Amino acid sequence: MANQDCVFCKIVAGELPSNQVYQDDLVTAFRDNHPLAPTHILIVPNEHLINANDLNRDHADVAARMLTIIPEIAKKEGVAESGYRLIMNAGPDGNQVVMHMHMHLLAGHRMRHPMG
Amino acid sequence: MANQDCVFCKIVAGELPSNQVYQDDLVTAFRDNHPLAPTHILIVPNEHLINANDLNRDHADVAARMLTIIPEIAKKEGVAESGYRLIMNAGPDGNQVVMHMHMHLLAGHRMRHPMG
Repeated sequence: MANQDCVFCKIVAGELPSNQVYQDDLVTAFRDNHPLAPTHILIVPNEHLINANDLNRDHADVAARMLTIIPEIAKKEGVAESGYRLIMNAGPDGNQVVMHMHMHLLAGHRMRHPMG
Repeated sequence: MANQDCVFCKIVAGELPSNQVYQDDLVTAFRDNHPLAPTHILIVPNEHLINANDLNRDHADVAARMLTIIPEIAKKEGVAESGYRLIMNAGPDGNQVVMHMHMHLLAGHRMRHPMG
C-alpha cells in the first residue's frame, strides 16, 4: 500500500522521475540523486515498509527479492567482480533519512569509510 | 555444504566457539569478536556462500531469512527503536575480509561514518 507523502512510493509508482535500473512486482531499483560512490543504487520494496523492523516473516518474498536481484544488478553495472557494499539504515542510530525502507548498493571505488 | 577451511563454517557447525545469539536451519548469528559498535552481530547463511554474488534466485529462502530475523534480533538486543545499520560487503571494493557471506548488524551508538 502506498503512502501518499512518501517520495519513494511516488518513484515506485512513476509519479516522480527517477533513473530506474530495475523494477518487478516486488521491488524497484534506481540511482541515488546524491551518489556517495561512482555507482550508488537504491533498492526499495514497492510496498511502503518503513525499515527492516517491518520485515517480519510475512515479508519473506520481498526480503528475498531485495537480496536475490543484487547479483543481476551488480553484473549489469560491471561491479560484481570488483565488489560493492550493501547498506540498510534503520532508525535514528542508523541515520535513516527517508522513511521507506531502502538498501544502498555502493560500488566503483574501494570503500573508504569504516563501518560502525 | 561446508568449506573445510572456512572459519564461519566451523562456527556454524559448533567446531569453533562463538557468542551465538541465534541459529535455525538456514542462518546463524553471533557477536563479532572485534566489535565496531556497542552491538555488533554477524548474520551468516549456514551454507557456505561467498558473498551476495552467490545469491541467485535459488537462494530465496536463505536470503529471506537473513533479513526477516533482523527485527527479532534487534528487539532482543534492545536496539529496534534506537536503530541500527546493516552492512554486507562483497569483494575487493567492499573490503570483504572473510569469504563466507555475512551481514553486519551495528547498533548502540549513532553511526559515525559516512557510507561509500
